[in-house]
Amino acid sequence: LSKVLITTVPFGSEGCQSISLLQNAGIDFVINPIGRKLLESELFELIGDYDAIIAGTEQISARIIEKSKKLKFISRVGVGLDGVDLSSAHRHNVLVSYTAEAPAPAVAELAVGLIFSLVRKINQSNIYMHRNEWKRFTGKRIEHTNFGVIGIGRIGERVVKILSSLGAKNIFVNDSERRIIPEIDNLVRWVEKDEIFKHSDLISIHTPLNETTYNMISYSEMKKMKEGAMIVNTARGGIVNEIDLHRILLEGHLGGAAIDVFEREPYQGLLSKMDTCLLTSHMGSMSLDCRCKMEVEATEEVIRFFNGKSLKGLVPEYEYLQRSDFSKY
Amino acid sequence: LSKVLITTVPFGSEGCQSISLLQNAGIDFVINPIGRKLLESELFELIGDYDAIIAGTEQISARIIEKSKKLKFISRVGVGLDGVDLSSAHRHNVLVSYTAEAPAPAVAELAVGLIFSLVRKINQSNIYMHRNEWKRFTGKRIEHTNFGVIGIGRIGERVVKILSSLGAKNIFVNDSERRIIPEIDNLVRWVEKDEIFKHSDLISIHTPLNETTYNMISYSEMKKMKEGAMIVNTARGGIVNEIDLHRILLEGHLGGAAIDVFEREPYQGLLSKMDTCLLTSHMGSMSLDCRCKMEVEATEEVIRFFNGKSLKGLVPEYEYLQRSDFSKY
Repeated sequence: LSKVLITTVPFGSEGCQSISLLQNAGIDFVINPIGRKLLESELFELIGDYDAIIAGTEQISARIIEKSKKLKFISRVGVGLDGVDLSSAHRHNVLVSYTAEAPAPAVAELAVGLIFSLVRKINQSNIYMHRNEWKRFTGKRIEHTNFGVIGIGRIGERVVKILSSLGAKNIFVNDSERRIIPEIDNLVRWVEKDEIFKHSDLISIHTPLNETTYNMISYSEMKKMKEGAMIVNTARGGIVNEIDLHRILLEGHLGGAAIDVFEREPYQGLLSKMDTCLLTSHMGSMSLDCRCKMEVEATEEVIRFFNGKSLKGLVPEYEYLQRSDFSKY
Repeated sequence: LSKVLITTVPFGSEGCQSISLLQNAGIDFVINPIGRKLLESELFELIGDYDAIIAGTEQISARIIEKSKKLKFISRVGVGLDGVDLSSAHRHNVLVSYTAEAPAPAVAELAVGLIFSLVRKINQSNIYMHRNEWKRFTGKRIEHTNFGVIGIGRIGERVVKILSSLGAKNIFVNDSERRIIPEIDNLVRWVEKDEIFKHSDLISIHTPLNETTYNMISYSEMKKMKEGAMIVNTARGGIVNEIDLHRILLEGHLGGAAIDVFEREPYQGLLSKMDTCLLTSHMGSMSLDCRCKMEVEATEEVIRFFNGKSLKGLVPEYEYLQRSDFSKY
């Protein structure tokens, strides 16, 4: 009997058929007993003799892959691969799939929601009001906000389209390479990152986490940003340096930030002391539809794997190449 | 020399030319010395011998109009007239103007921002994170949310258009009368209020406050709403009953609410104890552009009045008729 460890939580909630798919396929499974993102040491203890992992964003390190002698397949619920030691997986003939498309609509909408909160200071007003303090904040409308979008993949492209449909006129974009994307090319200006820092009232991050994006927005980059400018990170923790962000918010140079992703999750850090920092708990993909789609796609992939069928979500080779030097995680 | 009392605050902030317009016109003015929305009793004390008021949302009652012997003109910064005793103004030959169009874009965007927060529970997650509690909330995407919009005037119409451009498919609308609005008629379904309560995941209010809308959403209406449904009020306090909202949120029948406007402002009430209630401090029109536009339009109207020029923003007669029975304020 095939055994699957489901590390991602929540799993199978609110009418999602992911669990019944496993049951109907006769697959034995265990759901993360700790109920939150596992530490590397916790997963190391748990890994045992599972044949496959339905994985979240937790770290699946070389020593975990080496310890799990029976592991043959990792099916990521979601898209980021910064947690998985891909080269170790490759060496040990562990295949890795992900659900690259499914999270995008939900992450893009969360980013836009965070943007709306920041530009009108909804989050700050809410904190004040819950302290019975009445302070009227003046904000900006979307039309008058200069946006910077770094990372124009599945999610960044959606964010650009939504902002544009909401009336945004100045959208500066940047990615590791300039690509031609006909659907948005007339909506944006491709510029160097320094131009983004200089011109943007709000910067939204949509890159993967890898060796070139780790600490991409640190103190010196934040200092280059306009007084009162804002940052949204729904991509991965570590891209925006948390300590530096806390410092610059404390100094008052930036007007606010919205951070959904953290270097270590669950997050308990200094940013939680800042009224100007909107914090959410890695909820980018947490819309009912997208979350369930991700779970179902990752589960179906596991079933295909055990049945010897061809896989639909295998991680493409360039993801392995891009990450060859990235040993931070 | 003409003397103007400016009751609305803030006024003339962040590069807005409203104050210099008054100075250049040689008009003597005093800005609200209390720095927040005045109580009726405070304005009664302050009113003195001013020729005109550049007014906010505070109550300008019959006894204030009667006491202010020299008052000839009220120029409202904004659009709602629930604060002004129009029939008393009419009897005492006090003209009233407002800036009916200027706030709409900013209010509509705040409403959409609050909607994004509620459907993804951004506000709740932020409160938890600031307490160092990590809890992942599952939300809905715009496309899968049934919306109810009550009040299809300048603002409601904009909200409908924005929601539709964001992918909303089910938008139920209602107003005091069914009107033909070609631009949105193919985007919405006009229904009775009870249908809105029954079908909506989220209801956004955009009516004026008058005798028919006061307490329009009270306990019995909230009970008709779906389990977990949400309410946004950026219109006026008193339309959604605050005590009833607190009760129903406490009971857990509704999933959340976002309230920007209150019966008494500054608000200090029970809703501030509810994590599920997003509260903002009457910031609907508080975008830099709209706020300044409102101030400038109201100021230019005062200058026109003193110069005997024809007025552009005089309150139309139907506003006087609609409100003839409304003596709550």
